[in-house]
Amino acid sequence: MNASLDHTRQPFVLEDATAILARTPATVDTLLRGLPTSWINAHEGGDTWSPFVVIGHLIHGEQADWIPRATIILTHGHTRAFDTFDRLAQFSASADRTLPDLLDDFARLRASSLDTLRAFNLTEADLDRPGRHPELGAVTLRQLLATWVAHDLDHVAQISRVLARQYSDAVGPWRAYLRVISGAPG
Amino acid sequence: MNASLDHTRQPFVLEDATAILARTPATVDTLLRGLPTSWINAHEGGDTWSPFVVIGHLIHGEQADWIPRATIILTHGHTRAFDTFDRLAQFSASADRTLPDLLDDFARLRASSLDTLRAFNLTEADLDRPGRHPELGAVTLRQLLATWVAHDLDHVAQISRVLARQYSDAVGPWRAYLRVISGAPG
Repeated sequence: MNASLDHTRQPFVLEDATAILARTPATVDTLLRGLPTSWINAHEGGDTWSPFVVIGHLIHGEQADWIPRATIILTHGHTRAFDTFDRLAQFSASADRTLPDLLDDFARLRASSLDTLRAFNLTEADLDRPGRHPELGAVTLRQLLATWVAHDLDHVAQISRVLARQYSDAVGPWRAYLRVISGAPG
Repeated sequence: MNASLDHTRQPFVLEDATAILARTPATVDTLLRGLPTSWINAHEGGDTWSPFVVIGHLIHGEQADWIPRATIILTHGHTRAFDTFDRLAQFSASADRTLPDLLDDFARLRASSLDTLRAFNLTEADLDRPGRHPELGAVTLRQLLATWVAHDLDHVAQISRVLARQYSDAVGPWRAYLRVISGAPG
C-alpha cells in the first residue's frame, strides 16, 4: 500500500497540528456563544460534563497541562515526571464565571500557548525528546503535542454529542439512524 | 424529580433548535476552512467519510431532506411518504468542487432553509402534524426538525472524530485516555 494514499493516519507534523490548535477556540465559540442556557448546561447524566464544564477544562489544560508539560520535557527530559493534572479543577475555577468569559479566556490562553510553542522553535530532534508521565510512563514531546490536538477534537466531539443527545427522545423513530444518539459503531 | 433539573433531555422548542441550526455552517467553516488537505481528506478507512464528503452530504440535506420533507408534511401529511434520501449523492455532486466552495454553498443553502422555516410560521399544532417516512413509518414534523438538529451535531462530532483519529498512533500511550480514539464508552 502506498503510504501517501493512506488517509486514516497521519504522522505528527507541527504545522498541521498547529492548524487545528489555532482553530479550536473559534470553533467552540461559534458553536456555543449565545446559545440558550439549556444547551450550555446540558449533560449526559450523573457526573458527565456540560459544554460549560468542558470549556473550563480546556482552560485548565492551557494553564496546567500542555505548555507546562512541554516545558518540563525541554528542561528536565525524563528525569522529572509531569505534575498530575486535575481533571476537576474547572468546577471550582469556573464557579462564578459566565460562558462568554470562559470562551474569551480560552481564546486568550490558547493564543499565548501557541506563541510559546512557536518560540520553542522545535526541531525534529526536540520532538523526540523523552518525558515521563506520572501514570503512563515514557512519552515523547511529539506524543504530547499530538495528544493536545486529539484532546481538543475529542472535546469538540463531546460537546456536539452532549447537545445532540438532548434530543434522544425528541427525534422519535429517527433515533436508530443517528449514531451520535444510538451509539451504534461504524 | 423536578423536570426542570433534568439536563439530559430537552423537549423540542423551535427557537432553541433554530439556535443550533443557524450556527452549524459557521462551526464547520471555522473548524475546516484553510486546513491542510491531509485533514480535509482524512477518513476512518473503507468507505467512511472525510470532512469534505460530510460537507457535501450536509449540502444535499438542505436540497433534498429537511425543508422538502417538512413541505411534504405540511402539504400532504401522512398520505404521501417522503422521497428516499440519497446518502451518496455528494460523491458525484462534490466531485469537481473545492472545500471553500462547499462551505459557501452550505452556508447559503442553510440560510435559505431557515428563511423558509420562519416563513412556515409553525404553531405547536403544526409541529404535531404527521408524516410518513419510507422506512421508519409514522413520524411528526416535530421529530423531523429535532432530527435536523441532531443530524447537524452528529456530523460535527463525526468530523472531529475523523480528524482526531488521524493521530491514533501519534499520541502513543495517551491513546488510552482519549475516548474519541479508544472508543471507550462513558
